[in-house]
Amino acid sequence: MSAPAIQQFDPQGQPAATSFPLNQWYVAGFAWELTDTPLARTLLGHPLVLFRTADGQVAALEDRCCHRALPLSKGTLEEQGVRCGYHGLLFGADGKCLEVPGQTKVPGKALVKAYKVREQDQIIWLWYGRDEQAEPSSEPPSYPHHSSGQYLFGGDVYHYDAPWQLIHDNLLDLSHLGYVHLHTIGGNARIHMNAQMQVTGDDESVKVVRYMPDSEPPPTYTAAYPFKGRIDRWQEIEFNLSHLRIWTGAVDVGTDAIDDPQRGGFHMRGFHGITPETATSCHYFWSMATNPLSEPEETLRKVLQQTEQTFDEDKQIIEAQYANMKRFGVQPMVDIHVDVGPNRARRIIERLLKDNG
Amino acid sequence: MSAPAIQQFDPQGQPAATSFPLNQWYVAGFAWELTDTPLARTLLGHPLVLFRTADGQVAALEDRCCHRALPLSKGTLEEQGVRCGYHGLLFGADGKCLEVPGQTKVPGKALVKAYKVREQDQIIWLWYGRDEQAEPSSEPPSYPHHSSGQYLFGGDVYHYDAPWQLIHDNLLDLSHLGYVHLHTIGGNARIHMNAQMQVTGDDESVKVVRYMPDSEPPPTYTAAYPFKGRIDRWQEIEFNLSHLRIWTGAVDVGTDAIDDPQRGGFHMRGFHGITPETATSCHYFWSMATNPLSEPEETLRKVLQQTEQTFDEDKQIIEAQYANMKRFGVQPMVDIHVDVGPNRARRIIERLLKDNG
Amino acid sequence: MSAPAIQQFDPQGQPAATSFPLNQWYVAGFAWELTDTPLARTLLGHPLVLFRTADGQVAALEDRCCHRALPLSKGTLEEQGVRCGYHGLLFGADGKCLEVPGQTKVPGKALVKAYKVREQDQIIWLWYGRDEQAEPSSEPPSYPHHSSGQYLFGGDVYHYDAPWQLIHDNLLDLSHLGYVHLHTIGGNARIHMNAQMQVTGDDESVKVVRYMPDSEPPPTYTAAYPFKGRIDRWQEIEFNLSHLRIWTGAVDVGTDAIDDPQRGGFHMRGFHGITPETATSCHYFWSMATNPLSEPEETLRKVLQQTEQTFDEDKQIIEAQYANMKRFGVQPMVDIHVDVGPNRARRIIERLLKDNG
Repeated sequence: MSAPAIQQFDPQGQPAATSFPLNQWYVAGFAWELTDTPLARTLLGHPLVLFRTADGQVAALEDRCCHRALPLSKGTLEEQGVRCGYHGLLFGADGKCLEVPGQTKVPGKALVKAYKVREQDQIIWLWYGRDEQAEPSSEPPSYPHHSSGQYLFGGDVYHYDAPWQLIHDNLLDLSHLGYVHLHTIGGNARIHMNAQMQVTGDDESVKVVRYMPDSEPPPTYTAAYPFKGRIDRWQEIEFNLSHLRIWTGAVDVGTDAIDDPQRGGFHMRGFHGITPETATSCHYFWSMATNPLSEPEETLRKVLQQTEQTFDEDKQIIEAQYANMKRFGVQPMVDIHVDVGPNRARRIIERLLKDNG
Repeated sequence: MSAPAIQQFDPQGQPAATSFPLNQWYVAGFAWELTDTPLARTLLGHPLVLFRTADGQVAALEDRCCHRALPLSKGTLEEQGVRCGYHGLLFGADGKCLEVPGQTKVPGKALVKAYKVREQDQIIWLWYGRDEQAEPSSEPPSYPHHSSGQYLFGGDVYHYDAPWQLIHDNLLDLSHLGYVHLHTIGGNARIHMNAQMQVTGDDESVKVVRYMPDSEPPPTYTAAYPFKGRIDRWQEIEFNLSHLRIWTGAVDVGTDAIDDPQRGGFHMRGFHGITPETATSCHYFWSMATNPLSEPEETLRKVLQQTEQTFDEDKQIIEAQYANMKRFGVQPMVDIHVDVGPNRARRIIERLLKDNG
Repeated sequence: MSAPAIQQFDPQGQPAATSFPLNQWYVAGFAWELTDTPLARTLLGHPLVLFRTADGQVAALEDRCCHRALPLSKGTLEEQGVRCGYHGLLFGADGKCLEVPGQTKVPGKALVKAYKVREQDQIIWLWYGRDEQAEPSSEPPSYPHHSSGQYLFGGDVYHYDAPWQLIHDNLLDLSHLGYVHLHTIGGNARIHMNAQMQVTGDDESVKVVRYMPDSEPPPTYTAAYPFKGRIDRWQEIEFNLSHLRIWTGAVDVGTDAIDDPQRGGFHMRGFHGITPETATSCHYFWSMATNPLSEPEETLRKVLQQTEQTFDEDKQIIEAQYANMKRFGVQPMVDIHVDVGPNRARRIIERLLKDNG
């Protein structure tokens, strides 16, 4: 087994923006992030300002006033758009300048690039085409757990000083739970390393399923759910280019079938949107949904607190890993059994990058 | 109208020292900055140590001991000059080594570069010629408001992570007051944007005059002066290479003629010395003088406090602007009506730079 | 007299690792630094993890897991070696992977580089050969003052943002005591500058001896020892590539002969191991041993406190010196009488570097 993609990655380099697969939806943010001030965020190499106009439309503009280059994100929001904080030029959601204070005529050249964005299930999606004007060729992914009402959820946005694929690797190989998350969701290391693992997938997705029947519940689980003793536990991970869905959970040992989609028990449904900021940094948009048995708010609070702690642990490891990759430069890597899933995801991205050309 | 200079400016580059006009006086500091310790300051690309000897002479030496390269600014001042803090070599105001502790003979090569400096009206001026030995071909500018006794004044030195010309732009176009300084000297944005503006000048200077008759007094003005109600307000800006003089003020509406040099009312006379530190950073030496009607110390204190707050606001905007210019690289800029003054100043510098050759 | 080595040194450059003399022992650490967690330290351009196994063996491995590049120093110590903090691979003192959790076979390629280290007299020595497998051609230096029981001692490790040779310069020329350490071990500057100095040496070492008979005791001395009044004081410095030994001390004036190895009085015996981290930074491993007359613990505490303060002063000066060298680039330096010792040491390193080829 080989991991070609990770080895040809040059941690020192700043690949061109086309290092990211084109004609894809990427996560730009969560709906609840767009408040009464503009949001600055660099996505796929492009510094953007995100905001919502009074009529509810979401906008993503180049974060640079066309007059004297101040970031528009330093300005203020008005009904029609964003007003620059230096000389007051006003820009609408389509990037056109609507007003130059003190002069009646707005120059035709006074406009900034506007990107295609779409809001769905509380996720803001950005279409990344050949250029910012390219029309999307598909609908953005749906994520019903944010809107079905069946789950309570919360989430956050983390910034990573590491390339996005290192997070894919991490999420597609949960065997690290026993070492990185020993004190949270991990529990006994041997359980994770010896779990049965099934890797499937196609040209666009990878699915890694791991079952840990008759195992000790980890701290997060017992804190959130009244298990009676040992549990039958599952981890179902689905990778797609822009995000992963990770379904984990457990039932009391020997009750529901572990692979039955209708199984009961405790569920954690994680959304993990990962979008490159640059070739060497990324944004990690996550939400965690759960099914409270009782004390719903308190259970959610516990689950989110443990999730945050877990993701903080991952961030420390992954950023240390990337800093070390930069320090050592390109070096061979030895693969082990748990790398099957991550390597398939790398091959999908490799293939998509070839299609960019 | 076009702004050629700003567009050919490469924000990533580190132009040679001759990117600054030669044979000019530049502000090196204020007289009150030279105390009992040496002052380290990089001016026009040259790291200098500034100090005053016991006989009152001001000196500017290369900030590097010729023995083992310690900055002389880490040393101590003595009657005759500055003593290095490593092995104790003593240098006079002319850069010659006066003593090597422990040996009787001072090597002939033991000297550091000495620059031409002059003190006038509490401003320390540095002559920037072809090299540090070039004799000044003119007298440094005078600034009588520091010495006439007619005004109370105070000032400070700000460091900017931005090229000096971005501060020129800012000061020559006070239309930004309504957006950047809304809560201090700004007041109503429309007043500023719609003010009559007159731009004049010659090969060496630009003058921008703006009158805002019958307008609302801004917070700084009412805090400092007992206006009866609406005011006739002026802004008179004069750009010279090394510094700007900005006369602002107001009389009660309909009293003195707004353009009469003898007009009464409230005056703020700003000195704005801007000296490149490097091609991408600068020092901003400012003083603000005012004419107290009553409670002079308290009025000055208020004026300086509001001035500082205003200049802090400018610094935030200009550094954010420059950071964004670096982030986006060279990009076209769209000019608007308020850019007439700034663009004239840029053309003066462009012409002076051509003369450098 | 000339100082060729320092002048051909390019402070901007990052010389290849072979800029350091090969086939030498360098200090890697002190024995007491190896505790129950792995120690990360970059030596001679190589990021290493140092640890001790349960059987007491000291190990130095490349600080990078061969699986996914996490620093092994982020892992945990076990009886047999260090376990990676990401997926749990275990490595022994020889760099071989002993276990891959979850799989029975350990791939043959699963190993990391192991360096030759030796522990002696509480100092960990690293052999720096052509590559990490090269066998040492000599025994590491001994340092009996750490093991004879004759002295009380303590020490520390300082990190310097400066090339190692600037510390050699500093230690081989104690004339700086009067300026840098005026308030600690320095005392009167003239005493140091006018002290008799004798410089001797051979192809591998430099010895600088300075005697200051009938002088005022400096603050450190009077704090640590009950001198009656004026003192006969000595400084004996011996430079070897990897470390300096500095014997300083004093007897009451006119008692023991100043150059008698059996002289009594107050002694400070300093070990100064200096190992490049990179071409522009280094580690400074120091210990200070002294002979308490009474109140041994209290005397040692005083001596160490004053030593630390002194070394802090040196660090400030040397890092400021190097920052200034970088700022000014390559420039000529003027030599004075005190540079004889430092320049000899530079010539030894120059010659060793030529032998590298």
